[in-house]
Amino acid sequence: MSGVALRDVSATPSAQYSIILRVEIDHEPGALGDVASAIGRSGGVIGDVALVSVAGDKLLRDITISAVGRETWGAIEDAIGRLGCARVVGVTDRTFQVHEGGKLEVTAKHPLKTRDDLAMAYTPGVARVCEAIHENPSLSHELTIRKNTVAVVTDGTAVLGLGDIGPEAAMPVMEGKAVLFKEFADVDAIPIALNTKDPDEIVSICKALAPTFGGINLEDISAPRCFEIEDRLKAELDIPVFHDDQHGTAIVTLAALINACKITGRRLEDVKVLVTGLGAAGIAVTKILLAAGVRDVIGADSKGLVSTTRADYVDGTMNSVKRWYAEMSNPEQLTGHPGDHLAGRDLFIGLSGARIFPAEKLATMAKDAMVFAMANPDPEVSPEEAAPYARIIATGRSDYPNQINNVLAFPGIFRGALDARSAQITEGMKTAAARAIADLVPDDELREDHIIPSVFDRDVSPAVARAVAEEAVEAEVPTL
Amino acid sequence: MSGVALRDVSATPSAQYSIILRVEIDHEPGALGDVASAIGRSGGVIGDVALVSVAGDKLLRDITISAVGRETWGAIEDAIGRLGCARVVGVTDRTFQVHEGGKLEVTAKHPLKTRDDLAMAYTPGVARVCEAIHENPSLSHELTIRKNTVAVVTDGTAVLGLGDIGPEAAMPVMEGKAVLFKEFADVDAIPIALNTKDPDEIVSICKALAPTFGGINLEDISAPRCFEIEDRLKAELDIPVFHDDQHGTAIVTLAALINACKITGRRLEDVKVLVTGLGAAGIAVTKILLAAGVRDVIGADSKGLVSTTRADYVDGTMNSVKRWYAEMSNPEQLTGHPGDHLAGRDLFIGLSGARIFPAEKLATMAKDAMVFAMANPDPEVSPEEAAPYARIIATGRSDYPNQINNVLAFPGIFRGALDARSAQITEGMKTAAARAIADLVPDDELREDHIIPSVFDRDVSPAVARAVAEEAVEAEVPTL
Repeated sequence: MSGVALRDVSATPSAQYSIILRVEIDHEPGALGDVASAIGRSGGVIGDVALVSVAGDKLLRDITISAVGRETWGAIEDAIGRLGCARVVGVTDRTFQVHEGGKLEVTAKHPLKTRDDLAMAYTPGVARVCEAIHENPSLSHELTIRKNTVAVVTDGTAVLGLGDIGPEAAMPVMEGKAVLFKEFADVDAIPIALNTKDPDEIVSICKALAPTFGGINLEDISAPRCFEIEDRLKAELDIPVFHDDQHGTAIVTLAALINACKITGRRLEDVKVLVTGLGAAGIAVTKILLAAGVRDVIGADSKGLVSTTRADYVDGTMNSVKRWYAEMSNPEQLTGHPGDHLAGRDLFIGLSGARIFPAEKLATMAKDAMVFAMANPDPEVSPEEAAPYARIIATGRSDYPNQINNVLAFPGIFRGALDARSAQITEGMKTAAARAIADLVPDDELREDHIIPSVFDRDVSPAVARAVAEEAVEAEVPTL
Repeated sequence: MSGVALRDVSATPSAQYSIILRVEIDHEPGALGDVASAIGRSGGVIGDVALVSVAGDKLLRDITISAVGRETWGAIEDAIGRLGCARVVGVTDRTFQVHEGGKLEVTAKHPLKTRDDLAMAYTPGVARVCEAIHENPSLSHELTIRKNTVAVVTDGTAVLGLGDIGPEAAMPVMEGKAVLFKEFADVDAIPIALNTKDPDEIVSICKALAPTFGGINLEDISAPRCFEIEDRLKAELDIPVFHDDQHGTAIVTLAALINACKITGRRLEDVKVLVTGLGAAGIAVTKILLAAGVRDVIGADSKGLVSTTRADYVDGTMNSVKRWYAEMSNPEQLTGHPGDHLAGRDLFIGLSGARIFPAEKLATMAKDAMVFAMANPDPEVSPEEAAPYARIIATGRSDYPNQINNVLAFPGIFRGALDARSAQITEGMKTAAARAIADLVPDDELREDHIIPSVFDRDVSPAVARAVAEEAVEAEVPTL
């Protein structure tokens, strides 16, 4: 039934586990071949092979190898050791190498080589610029880094699938986000990992930091604290605030759904949706779907479907965000395990965790079912298992088709907001972004395994930015 | 008496007031000459002249012009307008042009072009780095930007000579500081201008921000709040904290004094000092001089010399920093206006403001008097006026000899602290920095008008960094 070409990638060697082996190899015919065979037999895939030096009857080579996991590295080393003709003299973990000293640099836009440069960029000339901003603070959006700079703020409580790992350990993700901002939208982003989990303190810190930045991207802050923090910052700050785990995911999910509906001949109004996982992303995805016209969404957290008849709603212990959810969704007041409520559903959106129900349950879904199993790295249901039951399958992973990845949204969103000097990122701007992303797959290229552009499609961010900025202007969103 | 070659620079055209005039000039012999003459007559100094385009009988030229002040710009435009053969069609303020969009960029150290790049620098590979830091947070000083990144934190209360102009208006100075950090010491610096003046809040924000940074450079925070904020952060944080307005100025002043003593044949122990201005810099300069062996310092604030006999000390209204000052200085309990206490002093250090006493008062100073008049842009006493009375004259200005400029210290100080992975910047490291700066002027180059290296001497920061790191290692300063 599935139109998706699938392959089992769980055991595919990947760059995330790639190493550079420095190997001393006897300078004799066949020795390199033996080494290469040993690597291949042990599960390694060879990339670049560089000759480092020739010394006597030995050659020193750097061999780049992708592997399935760390355990493969030892197996490769052992296999080379047993050859007799070669010896491993060094192992470099390429992922750690990329992180050495951090992934970002803060550079000057203009050289500072002469006294004249100094007199303009620093004292005494800078004083005239300071005075101009003092007289008219909104000039800071023109004459300082605010014009192009966003803070990527986290407290390290909900990092990737790793959970509450703390601010220091969250930094590599925030830095990676900053790299993506620069790479895809020429936005300068500064990672800020905060050593506090107190929402009041996070709000007051962001408010205090605001004069430095043109926008704040909240990141990897656990639910339900993330909702309160974002809502308060949006109300109290005059620069755009955007919690990417919520809205980035929601925007790209909506884009994927728009195109999946084109293929399956559905209208958004008619799509029946089941969402599992009501953290930041699950709530936001539901919100944007309802705003876009979807009428029937049911959602489940770890206690099952949320409804106004559930015990914790009735006794008042349910948090306010889920109370809102219970009231806005689940028109039939269904209860119980989400796996028991797939019957007749058009779309399953997984934002919870691996294997929450057997794949066969998907069989009861509506014809031409759509399955967005987005838990990462292990989807709620693997694409291989879902294939017999679903026409369209999307995941959060880069090694399957239809990757629903925030990077399609956030760089362009902020680029557009900064370009329009918008004081907010409105619901309208988010929907405009989703439509722009969907439109980047032309009708004649739409296929079951191509409902969403590639993260490396360089047209995405500019198109999103344009759509977002145009919507800001058309809707007369307040400017800075 | 002075060995300093002086010139009156108050009316010297400077890059800080430079503009680019776009002028349409008749294409006929002598027209450009007429324009150039008009500019010169009006007080402008011509730099580059670029030909933009030729259209019919008109040439479009961009003429870069330095001027004494903004008023000159209008005079130049008027003079060109009166020529008849030329017309000004555009004026660009070069200092503002340099600030357009801010002076910094946040760039990726490694390209992100392929899926493999993404799999290492971001998901899924980044998770392994996060986990490693989670297990051992001190790895964040190796695997994140902390290894090379310093926050430049201000509340905008004491910016240059402009005072409390607020965080937005302070940003161009913080950005300039970050440019200097990168340019002179390859330190990545991130400007942070805080929208709060509350010392408790500033301390708690810096503590919350600490997981992101390898050090904190406090900047342009008014006294006496700056003392409390720095002291508390030093006690409560395990990364280096350094208030540049205090210690940067102190270090470079000590360096200048060391060399001035070599020329005048003095020992630090014997130098009698008068300091005017007891803000951040005045306090810190006194501290470092006393630590370096100077025994007789008297200091004055706007109420006159500070002593334990002054009314506000006696009645307890004097703040705690000045109480300390009264107790540690002024052994003879002198009182009154600083201008009445120059007699017999070897060194005058001005950190207060322009023209606080008539220059003739300097006549009573000791033989071979040393005058460091550092108020900026207008020194306490102008070098021209001081020349008859002082053998050595230093200022804070780039257009006089002997510029006492913090940029000689702070980039190298943090470079050294980061290189040594030092958890602190100790008094010993500061003194080592001062001695390294002094040593950069070799004995055979020491002259009355060359007691300190140029801010553009590229040897300074590396030498300071080396001295600071060596001292950290030798003194076994705690590491990160």
